[in-house]
Amino acid sequence: MPDPDAFVLDPRLEADSTFVLDMPLSTLRLSGDARYPWLLLVPRRPDLTEIIDLDAAGRTQLMDEITQVSTALREITGCDKLNVGALGNVVAQLHVHVIARFRNDAAWPGPVWGVGEAQAWDPDKRAALVEALRRSLP
Amino acid sequence: MPDPDAFVLDPRLEADSTFVLDMPLSTLRLSGDARYPWLLLVPRRPDLTEIIDLDAAGRTQLMDEITQVSTALREITGCDKLNVGALGNVVAQLHVHVIARFRNDAAWPGPVWGVGEAQAWDPDKRAALVEALRRSLP
Repeated sequence: MPDPDAFVLDPRLEADSTFVLDMPLSTLRLSGDARYPWLLLVPRRPDLTEIIDLDAAGRTQLMDEITQVSTALREITGCDKLNVGALGNVVAQLHVHVIARFRNDAAWPGPVWGVGEAQAWDPDKRAALVEALRRSLP
Repeated sequence: MPDPDAFVLDPRLEADSTFVLDMPLSTLRLSGDARYPWLLLVPRRPDLTEIIDLDAAGRTQLMDEITQVSTALREITGCDKLNVGALGNVVAQLHVHVIARFRNDAAWPGPVWGVGEAQAWDPDKRAALVEALRRSLP
């Protein structure tokens, strides 16, 4: 019987993104929208909606993982700006966006959410970014 | 002579928001857009653009202040969801948005940034929210 208290990734997050790697707290995924190098950190604990649903140790760990992922993403992409956000208005399961932004990207200077149509990844380009992230992250 | 290394609040952030209180790291301000209870945490250190520009102690403190502000804001407003984000595509000076969202607000379920026209606060309502925040926060 499945453990009712276990973490289960929201099926919408799962469908819209690709697994990159597991960090101590969060699973790291790459968004399926190829217009931006766009990562999602999803803490692997059940029943989280807000950052403040995490305990203090969990929040510190989340900040560490945001830092590691932000650093790697900026190094790999050479982006102009990072956007970091926990919104969850559509999918309530706690997830933190870490997005590499460029002054010439499709939504600049606005936020990426809800703008235009997602664009599918070229599989080779996606694999290369996932591989670069795996090499950069501990 | 002014200290060139001192923190100076970006004039656009200053113009668009009202001082609430100073926390150990950040100055807390209320956005001038009355459509949402919308707070800004601005770390009072010079030359910060990204969360990862803070050192580890600063990041931990920022997470603590996000937690305190989120908790107080949700308690005061009874909001349906919190939105927390550091974007900075327009104003680069590091600032973290903590926004109380409601299922019937002007932008739901999208993000608040760049949607519609800001609405001016009724001065009494703004003063009441600022006062409630000051009472709730250490």
